[in-house]
Amino acid sequence: MPPSLSASTKDQIDMKSGQAGAQEIADDSEIRTLIENWSKGVRDEDRGAIRRDHDDDILMFDVPPPFQSRGIDDYMATWETFFSSAEKPVSFNFTDVQITAGSDVSFATAVGHCVTIGKDGRREPLDFRLTMGLRKIGGRWRVTHEHHSLPAV
Amino acid sequence: MPPSLSASTKDQIDMKSGQAGAQEIADDSEIRTLIENWSKGVRDEDRGAIRRDHDDDILMFDVPPPFQSRGIDDYMATWETFFSSAEKPVSFNFTDVQITAGSDVSFATAVGHCVTIGKDGRREPLDFRLTMGLRKIGGRWRVTHEHHSLPAV
Repeated sequence: MPPSLSASTKDQIDMKSGQAGAQEIADDSEIRTLIENWSKGVRDEDRGAIRRDHDDDILMFDVPPPFQSRGIDDYMATWETFFSSAEKPVSFNFTDVQITAGSDVSFATAVGHCVTIGKDGRREPLDFRLTMGLRKIGGRWRVTHEHHSLPAV
Repeated sequence: MPPSLSASTKDQIDMKSGQAGAQEIADDSEIRTLIENWSKGVRDEDRGAIRRDHDDDILMFDVPPPFQSRGIDDYMATWETFFSSAEKPVSFNFTDVQITAGSDVSFATAVGHCVTIGKDGRREPLDFRLTMGLRKIGGRWRVTHEHHSLPAV
């Protein structure tokens, strides 16, 4: 049995007994790092860093329209929309990051903070909700879904 | 080795080779049924059916405020808000349901359809985005996170 399967099976046994296994802790840590690198990519307006861990077929539900964006090109277009209204240098960071790490699929929730410039030129600090869906592909976590939103007023 | 671990390990091997395993297909089907039962629970205004597969510690990001609701009691309160403005009989169904089923964690995305009655008494058909996060606990899928939203205008 390859080591990866052995570790994963051990992890499942640990999860059944209610304790986080070593693999679950490692996955949690990898996904936290992924979110940190991605949000730093946004702050740096570094398109390569933003898309590095994202799947080609990502489904995006963003704060502004469109209703949904499918595929990496449409996903990247949502960042151009964001940069066009973001205060510079770009603020983009997260609190309350909570990872639900599985052996092959995970999701994360967080509260995001950014600052946009309104049409009247006024600075608008914005808190938003983030859900991120990930799948482990070839041993590496890839983002296949993001959902960013504000409550409707 | 218990049969459940054996099936799960086989599933991981199948997933590595790019084919959905029998377990992944079963999990996908169980989660689709869960979403159907839950949305029927909403249409029937059946609080017991709405909460049946939900975890006590669920984190909800809903369409209207509050920004977030934590725990099953606050989650159930969001349904009272919904029912207070929903057209009767309640419309609540989903299209584009996409399940990313893992062996212990899964998430689902969908487009939701409902009808609310505005403050002016006008009927407002509403499409919204849904992300649902699930964890397999004691061999059964439980919803630990929901994110419902509209694009911001």
